[in-house]
Amino acid sequence: MTAPVRIVLIDPSHPGNIGSVARAMKNMAVTDLVLVRPRSFPHPESNMLAAGADDVLANARVVSTVSEAVADCGFVAGTTSRPRSYYWEFTTPRDVAGRIVALPDDNRAALLFGSEKYGLGTEDLQYCNVLVRIPANPEYCSLNLAMSVQLLTYEIFMAREQPHSQTQLELPLAAAGDVEHFYNHLHQVMNEVDFEDKTGHLMDRIRRLFNRAQMDRNELNILRGILSAVQGRRGQSSSRPQ
Amino acid sequence: MTAPVRIVLIDPSHPGNIGSVARAMKNMAVTDLVLVRPRSFPHPESNMLAAGADDVLANARVVSTVSEAVADCGFVAGTTSRPRSYYWEFTTPRDVAGRIVALPDDNRAALLFGSEKYGLGTEDLQYCNVLVRIPANPEYCSLNLAMSVQLLTYEIFMAREQPHSQTQLELPLAAAGDVEHFYNHLHQVMNEVDFEDKTGHLMDRIRRLFNRAQMDRNELNILRGILSAVQGRRGQSSSRPQ
Repeated sequence: MTAPVRIVLIDPSHPGNIGSVARAMKNMAVTDLVLVRPRSFPHPESNMLAAGADDVLANARVVSTVSEAVADCGFVAGTTSRPRSYYWEFTTPRDVAGRIVALPDDNRAALLFGSEKYGLGTEDLQYCNVLVRIPANPEYCSLNLAMSVQLLTYEIFMAREQPHSQTQLELPLAAAGDVEHFYNHLHQVMNEVDFEDKTGHLMDRIRRLFNRAQMDRNELNILRGILSAVQGRRGQSSSRPQ
Repeated sequence: MTAPVRIVLIDPSHPGNIGSVARAMKNMAVTDLVLVRPRSFPHPESNMLAAGADDVLANARVVSTVSEAVADCGFVAGTTSRPRSYYWEFTTPRDVAGRIVALPDDNRAALLFGSEKYGLGTEDLQYCNVLVRIPANPEYCSLNLAMSVQLLTYEIFMAREQPHSQTQLELPLAAAGDVEHFYNHLHQVMNEVDFEDKTGHLMDRIRRLFNRAQMDRNELNILRGILSAVQGRRGQSSSRPQ
């Protein structure tokens, strides 16, 4: 068994695409689908295009934020064909599939797919440990949403079929929800010590740094402890958020 | 540059799928599309789903037989998810992509895709040098037509991007049309020498053997010469077909 994989569609606008995604997933033995703010779901067109993968649709979870969609995931990869202005680690579907399959199976992985029209928003990237770009014709590189899901899940299926090493992790990766609490805590401490954010992008940069590092639960707890200690020194008035 | 690749859709029934195939192809920089007996083409739904790959549709060629579709191709791969009763070499999209990319560029390759409902017919297999099966969930293994095209062309794009060796061929592979003439010639000679086909499947088996061997032009000419020589010994009455 390898790490379970979740497909997260953010703001999908066409019910038919959701159905095609369900079929593509089931073809590759991936069945955990989460929909963030779908324009219309459930919808008969989704079921028509699911063509027998109705069980994937029936078990799909609808949430209103990306944060909820990935809260229990230790590894989050975002798919994008757009260039991004800041430093991001870009990798390929094959590489990311290998990394997901190498995760111990108590680490859930999520693959994020943006809307048909706009792809992932900048605000979605802040949850990602890594970004994936599907190699494609540079003059015509925007794939249909369900096609992208098909390629990614195919690479995961292929990677699972092949002999693969397992990454040595002392502890499971920190779940995205817990990492979120850490960022809130850090932000609070920064305010308490009057650290000035001159650019307005400081938290974005800090998130990219820590997301890239893929903290485990222990590391996260150490950082939380440090933050609490800083607050302790500054008096009883400061509180540790959840 | 690597060997040019043609996508051949046999009996496609949904115009939308043809459009999705065109988009999937262009995303992976493959643009040569041949349609064998499409139920309806051109069709506005094809253009709608092509989403900017209208040029692929506009240049698509419509033919009435598989034989015409692959006549100038030296390497023909058929995609199938069904089990087949006879011996066939089954391979994966990744392997076949590597083999196509390794062909010298004066060898055109074709990938055959059967109808949405039935896949490739047994009569289509007789043109194939190799069969490809997309690895998939054994309990739900039938992919949408355009998804299959997407995966195969993606693997070709990936293989082209990577450093690859080139197969050493003394001469280009024999074009499928010429191989067809050879089979007709052989069949004629078999009749002339009163060779009895007890099973009724003899030509099928002979085709599988020679297709698997992937004859080059020289080898084919040698065999044609042998057949003509056999006919010469048997008198002036026998004729060499085209």
